[in-house]
Amino acid sequence: MRRIITIGREFGSGGRELGRRIAEKLEIAYYDQEIIREIAKRSELTEQYVEQVMEGGHISLPPITIGHSFYPVKDPVFEMSQSVYQQQSSIIKEMAERSDCVIVGRSADYILKDYHPCRLFVYADMDDRIARCREKAPENEHLSDKEMKQQIQRVNSRRARYYKFYTGQTWGDKLNYDLCINTSGTVIKELASMLAKMF
Amino acid sequence: MRRIITIGREFGSGGRELGRRIAEKLEIAYYDQEIIREIAKRSELTEQYVEQVMEGGHISLPPITIGHSFYPVKDPVFEMSQSVYQQQSSIIKEMAERSDCVIVGRSADYILKDYHPCRLFVYADMDDRIARCREKAPENEHLSDKEMKQQIQRVNSRRARYYKFYTGQTWGDKLNYDLCINTSGTVIKELASMLAKMF
Repeated sequence: MRRIITIGREFGSGGRELGRRIAEKLEIAYYDQEIIREIAKRSELTEQYVEQVMEGGHISLPPITIGHSFYPVKDPVFEMSQSVYQQQSSIIKEMAERSDCVIVGRSADYILKDYHPCRLFVYADMDDRIARCREKAPENEHLSDKEMKQQIQRVNSRRARYYKFYTGQTWGDKLNYDLCINTSGTVIKELASMLAKMF
Repeated sequence: MRRIITIGREFGSGGRELGRRIAEKLEIAYYDQEIIREIAKRSELTEQYVEQVMEGGHISLPPITIGHSFYPVKDPVFEMSQSVYQQQSSIIKEMAERSDCVIVGRSADYILKDYHPCRLFVYADMDDRIARCREKAPENEHLSDKEMKQQIQRVNSRRARYYKFYTGQTWGDKLNYDLCINTSGTVIKELASMLAKMF
């Protein structure tokens, strides 16, 4: 049976690094930005635009009823978002068919539910998320802790909204995962080694 | 540094078995019913009564204000519950001082926070919890799935209420734990071996 590991992660929790290191340890494929690149290639959209859509930036509920009548009003932004999600689903399934892999984000836990992946969710205390984001921030970015916290919360809300919209499930709710890992107080590299042994 | 593992667990999730097996694998002490026995011995209450109190059966908020006046009304049930919690805290701390150990339930993750334990929370899908409870039920118990589910929810609500009352935290909220483990689809024995290796 395929060994497929999906990783949902809070912004700033180190979930991406954890995923990459687990894949390295297990010597299996690792997919993250690759998914965006592939969608962009197939759809002829820019990677930046695809990423924005996939991070929930374009989710708006389509208008369904006005008064008592039903108006199937076409909403190009909504349709684009739907199309990106369909591409995302196909590509993620292709990846899972191809070989063992680790897939970070992109609702892969839900999209691949028939493949019974090991579903991880990675989170951390807010202080540690702020510290990690500060470490990774570009040199010319000078946000206060408060601003950094707001940024983190904004990204997470968008991820939650996107996930909810396409899966109907609550992002980060432990019932949707097999293992939820708090990276606070851990060294990601060591954690990855331990988890790789588990898999 | 002491190796202390605390295990919060949903009723029917197999958390107790997981804790016992991890302790066996690591050859360290395992505390569960021992805490109740010790409180009963020190307080001259029956084990059954202590267990009932610790499972949240006696939590009622003390009356604080009536109108605009402050009446420190004595409530013997509340005072007993407070006294049991104090005993519980002392005993759990003594256990942690004594040797490496696994402690199941009893708000140990919170009581021992200064000891920086590895805090596990064990949960499972409802169907699996029902199946596990049915397996462990006495022969003369004939509950329907619906009744079993209600029983599970009742126990969990009491645990959540007790935990909230004494810790101010939300029971089962992943932020209070280092690792949350879904036992659905796993074999507890194998899971325990893998986790023991991690520790």
